[in-house]
Amino acid sequence: MGTMRTLISNGTVVTASTAVEADVIIDGEHIVGVVEPGTAGDGFDRVIDATGRYVIPGGVDMHTHMELPVSGTTSADTYETGTRAAAIGGTTTIVDYAGQTRGSTLAAGLAEWMGRAEGHSYIDYGFHMMVTDVHEGTLAEFPQMMGVGVTTFKLFTAYPGVNLSDDRQILAAMQVAASIGATIMMHAENGIAIDLLRDEAVARGETDPIHHLLTRPASMEAEAVHRVVALAEIAGCPLVIVHISSQDALAEAVVARDGGLPVFAETCPQYLWLAQEDLPEGFEAAKFVCSPPLRRRSEGHQAALWSGIDTGRVDAVATDHCPFTWEQKEAGRGDFRKIPNGLGVVEHRVDLVYQGVVEGWIPLTRWIDVIAETPAKISGLYPKKGTIAPGSDADIVIYNPTGSHVLSARTHHMNLDYSVFEGAEVGGSAETVLSRGEVIVDRGVFVGEPGRGKYLVRGTNALLPERIVE
Amino acid sequence: MGTMRTLISNGTVVTASTAVEADVIIDGEHIVGVVEPGTAGDGFDRVIDATGRYVIPGGVDMHTHMELPVSGTTSADTYETGTRAAAIGGTTTIVDYAGQTRGSTLAAGLAEWMGRAEGHSYIDYGFHMMVTDVHEGTLAEFPQMMGVGVTTFKLFTAYPGVNLSDDRQILAAMQVAASIGATIMMHAENGIAIDLLRDEAVARGETDPIHHLLTRPASMEAEAVHRVVALAEIAGCPLVIVHISSQDALAEAVVARDGGLPVFAETCPQYLWLAQEDLPEGFEAAKFVCSPPLRRRSEGHQAALWSGIDTGRVDAVATDHCPFTWEQKEAGRGDFRKIPNGLGVVEHRVDLVYQGVVEGWIPLTRWIDVIAETPAKISGLYPKKGTIAPGSDADIVIYNPTGSHVLSARTHHMNLDYSVFEGAEVGGSAETVLSRGEVIVDRGVFVGEPGRGKYLVRGTNALLPERIVE
Amino acid sequence: MGTMRTLISNGTVVTASTAVEADVIIDGEHIVGVVEPGTAGDGFDRVIDATGRYVIPGGVDMHTHMELPVSGTTSADTYETGTRAAAIGGTTTIVDYAGQTRGSTLAAGLAEWMGRAEGHSYIDYGFHMMVTDVHEGTLAEFPQMMGVGVTTFKLFTAYPGVNLSDDRQILAAMQVAASIGATIMMHAENGIAIDLLRDEAVARGETDPIHHLLTRPASMEAEAVHRVVALAEIAGCPLVIVHISSQDALAEAVVARDGGLPVFAETCPQYLWLAQEDLPEGFEAAKFVCSPPLRRRSEGHQAALWSGIDTGRVDAVATDHCPFTWEQKEAGRGDFRKIPNGLGVVEHRVDLVYQGVVEGWIPLTRWIDVIAETPAKISGLYPKKGTIAPGSDADIVIYNPTGSHVLSARTHHMNLDYSVFEGAEVGGSAETVLSRGEVIVDRGVFVGEPGRGKYLVRGTNALLPERIVE
Amino acid sequence: MGTMRTLISNGTVVTASTAVEADVIIDGEHIVGVVEPGTAGDGFDRVIDATGRYVIPGGVDMHTHMELPVSGTTSADTYETGTRAAAIGGTTTIVDYAGQTRGSTLAAGLAEWMGRAEGHSYIDYGFHMMVTDVHEGTLAEFPQMMGVGVTTFKLFTAYPGVNLSDDRQILAAMQVAASIGATIMMHAENGIAIDLLRDEAVARGETDPIHHLLTRPASMEAEAVHRVVALAEIAGCPLVIVHISSQDALAEAVVARDGGLPVFAETCPQYLWLAQEDLPEGFEAAKFVCSPPLRRRSEGHQAALWSGIDTGRVDAVATDHCPFTWEQKEAGRGDFRKIPNGLGVVEHRVDLVYQGVVEGWIPLTRWIDVIAETPAKISGLYPKKGTIAPGSDADIVIYNPTGSHVLSARTHHMNLDYSVFEGAEVGGSAETVLSRGEVIVDRGVFVGEPGRGKYLVRGTNALLPERIVE
Repeated sequence: MGTMRTLISNGTVVTASTAVEADVIIDGEHIVGVVEPGTAGDGFDRVIDATGRYVIPGGVDMHTHMELPVSGTTSADTYETGTRAAAIGGTTTIVDYAGQTRGSTLAAGLAEWMGRAEGHSYIDYGFHMMVTDVHEGTLAEFPQMMGVGVTTFKLFTAYPGVNLSDDRQILAAMQVAASIGATIMMHAENGIAIDLLRDEAVARGETDPIHHLLTRPASMEAEAVHRVVALAEIAGCPLVIVHISSQDALAEAVVARDGGLPVFAETCPQYLWLAQEDLPEGFEAAKFVCSPPLRRRSEGHQAALWSGIDTGRVDAVATDHCPFTWEQKEAGRGDFRKIPNGLGVVEHRVDLVYQGVVEGWIPLTRWIDVIAETPAKISGLYPKKGTIAPGSDADIVIYNPTGSHVLSARTHHMNLDYSVFEGAEVGGSAETVLSRGEVIVDRGVFVGEPGRGKYLVRGTNALLPERIVE
Repeated sequence: MGTMRTLISNGTVVTASTAVEADVIIDGEHIVGVVEPGTAGDGFDRVIDATGRYVIPGGVDMHTHMELPVSGTTSADTYETGTRAAAIGGTTTIVDYAGQTRGSTLAAGLAEWMGRAEGHSYIDYGFHMMVTDVHEGTLAEFPQMMGVGVTTFKLFTAYPGVNLSDDRQILAAMQVAASIGATIMMHAENGIAIDLLRDEAVARGETDPIHHLLTRPASMEAEAVHRVVALAEIAGCPLVIVHISSQDALAEAVVARDGGLPVFAETCPQYLWLAQEDLPEGFEAAKFVCSPPLRRRSEGHQAALWSGIDTGRVDAVATDHCPFTWEQKEAGRGDFRKIPNGLGVVEHRVDLVYQGVVEGWIPLTRWIDVIAETPAKISGLYPKKGTIAPGSDADIVIYNPTGSHVLSARTHHMNLDYSVFEGAEVGGSAETVLSRGEVIVDRGVFVGEPGRGKYLVRGTNALLPERIVE
Repeated sequence: MGTMRTLISNGTVVTASTAVEADVIIDGEHIVGVVEPGTAGDGFDRVIDATGRYVIPGGVDMHTHMELPVSGTTSADTYETGTRAAAIGGTTTIVDYAGQTRGSTLAAGLAEWMGRAEGHSYIDYGFHMMVTDVHEGTLAEFPQMMGVGVTTFKLFTAYPGVNLSDDRQILAAMQVAASIGATIMMHAENGIAIDLLRDEAVARGETDPIHHLLTRPASMEAEAVHRVVALAEIAGCPLVIVHISSQDALAEAVVARDGGLPVFAETCPQYLWLAQEDLPEGFEAAKFVCSPPLRRRSEGHQAALWSGIDTGRVDAVATDHCPFTWEQKEAGRGDFRKIPNGLGVVEHRVDLVYQGVVEGWIPLTRWIDVIAETPAKISGLYPKKGTIAPGSDADIVIYNPTGSHVLSARTHHMNLDYSVFEGAEVGGSAETVLSRGEVIVDRGVFVGEPGRGKYLVRGTNALLPERIVE
Repeated sequence: MGTMRTLISNGTVVTASTAVEADVIIDGEHIVGVVEPGTAGDGFDRVIDATGRYVIPGGVDMHTHMELPVSGTTSADTYETGTRAAAIGGTTTIVDYAGQTRGSTLAAGLAEWMGRAEGHSYIDYGFHMMVTDVHEGTLAEFPQMMGVGVTTFKLFTAYPGVNLSDDRQILAAMQVAASIGATIMMHAENGIAIDLLRDEAVARGETDPIHHLLTRPASMEAEAVHRVVALAEIAGCPLVIVHISSQDALAEAVVARDGGLPVFAETCPQYLWLAQEDLPEGFEAAKFVCSPPLRRRSEGHQAALWSGIDTGRVDAVATDHCPFTWEQKEAGRGDFRKIPNGLGVVEHRVDLVYQGVVEGWIPLTRWIDVIAETPAKISGLYPKKGTIAPGSDADIVIYNPTGSHVLSARTHHMNLDYSVFEGAEVGGSAETVLSRGEVIVDRGVFVGEPGRGKYLVRGTNALLPERIVE
């Protein structure tokens, strides 16, 4: 007995390159054809009418933290609640961050995260590996990780005593990564200096959440980018600067890339749309606490990030999804240093970047590029994920370009009792979502089965010329 | 009676995004489907086996000069000889430069060029308009030109008394262009200052062709780029810097784009592969005389341009094809200022950029991007030209990635009795070429009919967000 | 019978290097000693008590336009009124701009200006030469000019049809200048492009003086600086960018100097203190019309210029003194293009830069450097002018650092019936001024004789290492 | 009974501003007058004829390490041998680096160094304080240090485990320094990353001295400069980057200063004249081992540093004098990491910078500025030291501008059995040297008494505008 054959007809297929009127033929889990409307013939088990809709590759969110243990608590979305919310918002792949426990192995960390995700995720998922303890032992595990599809390793210049690696460790990890074709993902903030500013603020009695923002200056993000770029150049190592929040940091990454280095820039919807100016008074601002922090709109950061997407200087928009409930955020009342860092964004990423198209910041194709194609390439998932082409997984979103709706905690699906985007109106919406050929959101109704998502064995960063990855 | 149906089977379809194993279905002049190998069904009039081959969009050369009248002579390739050579090399679209005769109208210039091309070209063609005399009258013609598909206007900061527009004229033209969604193409060299250096050199008795290169310093190219970027910023005008030859000029364009301006960079194969160091002694170097000139390899220009392609800082590779026979070049013996400027390159562009893939300078997808997709986008021809997708013209090249061959005047098809690439070995070759579904090169044999190429009514530059072209 | 011997005692001698308690011994026209207070001995014809005062070198204003013929009128200060005002304000040397009449020779221009100044100036004066017509003939005069002490030649990228030289002329003049050790002074604004913006504004009915400012964007000043720096680099020519008004233009000059080029930056008090925000409504703003124009304070230009003085990135503060009475300004009512360009500043320069010391922008020594020492060096007058040292001319100002006073047309001495600084309070004031040993301002009372000022045969720019001026 | 009165007659007095023919009058330890030749009168106890000579301020070497305990040994020059050599070479003031012993106090460190110098130095001396252990206790000592004339504090981003402070410590120290008007001196190299490169090299068997150079890339120096500038900007702290060796590092300091930050640049004669290309084969290269290391001449570092002096982008030339005998250097045979770092330079600094005048790199005045005036200003010793003016200490060198001689271990006075400048011919030489009015070198013969040098209570950095040091 054959596989199920699906036709998505009469839509406008949008990829990172262009928008064309075309029908998409799906056989089982894969796309088998993209053809002129009406030429696909008959014999389909299912026909989805996409008239007036964009047919886009399912979103690839290359930066999430589901069930992340952090400072005595755990981020509020499980692989189940988080991936359901992602899917409803048009994201069909996440690359989550597995983490090494200090003192233990990368393999153990991966196994732990695998265990948490397996049987729970509604969509396909992969893992980056957060290396919290760079030494000969963990470096020796890098090739094994590559062997099981973990081709990206994350390091931190922030969070001393928790995640921070020093420059020797960073350089050593970059050397190993370079030698095996892996890519380093970097949280770039000078956490050592920032911690002094934080402690000083608290000592002065400045304990409100706003001081979280004020003690993490953009110059300390830019500094860290400049530094890790210099280290990466010595190592010859591909580098992704994750969650860039400021024009200063972006400028450092851009100059590196201008100079030919394999340095890539990721930002997040929160840095594109939210700003320091948006914070509520007092402790309620804790909802907006993340690292790097939101920046001042009056300084031009948000406009610079949008411009960066437009010009291809920003490569990817991920979420750094790491939600904490209000109760969890309360832990930092009286001391902003204890507020768990992170926002809930995974459900809204596709919409929030599309809003940049609506408002004229970016062309349509750049939307798809930063939410799907380039994240898939960087993550080594392309063209399996991130595009609509024969052979690709049938991860497809039928997107209503005029599906205006309002974001709210009352309606969202993330496990979060508030929303930093509360009340924001966005112009489009994901209506129907397919994951490997299976409809998991049907005209707005979630119909997926938990655990149907599969672990993705990822390849290497596709943005590198051969001479680098050889 | 139906149209002819063609299947290109078993090849690897390469676009600017990716390479996938897929069959391409062509119905008449258009592509109607890209499907998984073996799933296209039967009933094809013709099946082209592309096993082991790349199936790529036909090349788009956005910068050619066929039959260009210049200083009392005419560039050596006609639309017939030039487009045949282009097709053999894998290029299926050219955007040639029509020109206004000083004192006459743009419309008259376009008509003249149209007359020369019509009935002669083997492949589809469009025209940019060289405006040699910017004034109220010619500016008033811009909208009409847009109406007939001429959406790009070329200005020069070089060649005083012939093509040069002064900064007032440039700014005025940019203002009009910006207001109607047109793009300005700019030959950026400070011709006024350069002419002094040229005259001084001749006065000193330095009359050999090498002095053509020595009197056009890279700083005078970079200066002009900087200047026209500043003017374009005031006008809010999209700008393409054509035939960038130096890292200095590229750096100016890159910084402009980093800053969010719609400034795009074109280079040519000659600037990627040839250098001042390659010039023969004495007057034979006249073969290599073009403007901007070849640069010193030891200064890093060629490596910087390759890196620019790799990182997306160079948007397009065109040819500035403008060949002159040895007899024509002889006009400048004894005075390099009289050597007709220009090289014959149109046949080799696809191969010469592919060679960058072979040598590890760029990934495969960047090859297709700079030779086809982005030139088509800038020229307002995308997705009709420049990609392989349903609805696109069936301009397709079956490219043998291991089709190594040697470039030579003995074997090339350009109307030129020498080659600046004589003896160069390139790793791949175009085997079979389709133009709008018609095979015009069949396994290396040219089988096209003259005059089958059609004039292309072009749209506007597709790289601009709506807010710019509004 | 001997010369008159003067002692200035008990003051604080301030130079560009430092402030020391010292007595200054003057014999006739020259300084013969700087000695520890009380050690000069007896036998002085005159003792000036400078207790509580700064004893500073007389100011050197390297950019004035007395009696300048411009668009059918003449700048309002004669060499008599202008130099009296200068002296009262603490300036004892001016370098005015002689000008070639188009079609005539440099020699004739110099003779004309010499004739106007001779017998009228109260203080010593030199001339730069404005070359309005660069051709073989005028270039051939450069060495003669050097021979009579005119070692600096001014060119314009502004004012097409009046003063503008094209890039060929500029480069040619720079080549000649470089070959003889002369320095080029450059008015850097892209006048050709600016003129279009001006004409367009008027065509739109935007005729008020504010449009003078709005049609001369800072980017067009920066562009011109970038361009002439590129030309100067080719020629190997020393270059002074005069009257820099914007941070953009300053940045271009600074980058050039960072790169080792002999490029120097001059600004003026009006650009340090006045801004677009200060303009009165309507036509009264004509008082503030000068070129380059005043810039927006909110954009940071003024702060950047002060910072530039502090860090040594700005070399000199001159005035571009070129006053026009209200009646003269009236010529531009209804068409801002007809407003004579220029402000009256020569009297206040020393005070207005000192005010930067009072407000903490710059250290005391930088004050003296930019108002006296470095202008004297650039002008080839050092150490005759610009410092207090044995052998130097006894051009000395006894400056009261707490001599607060208010600037006003009611009290100033310039031939001008209004003041752009009306009502501004400055913290210090020149009390007694000596020119070549002669007291010409005695505790605020002007006592000089007209015509006592002498023409200065200037040497070459002293800021250049030998390898450049060879 | 009165003090001794000395006249230096008929010389050319050269300061950072200019060169004038003048006589210098000295009374006891101080200069009391600078007067026109022949006007000083009679009654001098001693007249030094300086006909044909430069009369310059005694050199101020703001970076020396006499008797420095380092890795189990001690730098080879004592305060006696080192200051004698300095004096013979024309340097009359050193600012040496006292150091805190880890675990002990700054006060104890200062006392220890004071003890070593007192009674031994031939010339006046001050101390910077190397803080090796930044914590609340040592920070609390900063004001006390200021009180005893130690106004500059040195930190290291190099030498982990020995001198390195982390970014928190650096920022904390900068905050304290900023609050009290102190200046931070920074050894800027990323020692943490460099140590990995060193260990890797040795692990690969690359143990020769050349690998010391190869494992300290210029990018790691530039990175550290960029980082500490960012930290200083947050703290509002004045910063001197000591011993800049590369154009990359200089560029970072220059950009900071361009931006208005109080960041100053020091280099050393070894970085101006010596290069990687000069190293002998094998272990003999150990003589040239210092940190930062010598750079490749072919990359342009030396030319960039000279250009930086010319343009005022380099503020001071000190020596980082820290000599080790050949026997001491032998400790690193077989492992370059064990070679004591440091060169013997203190005797030749004045000559080696003067050689830049001879060869046309810099004007005469820049020589005096970087060897005397600006180091004195930065060190808070101006105008007591660093100039020739009434009230200044009579630290004067009679310099023969044509006193060509050859540098050699056979003739130098440093306690070093080899010379990295062996055989170099320099064009000038110090003939007679006065320290506080006392002749200590008389026409080349050293006649000073040990212990005559006095400790200098230094003020704050004079290059800062008031608003910074408030």
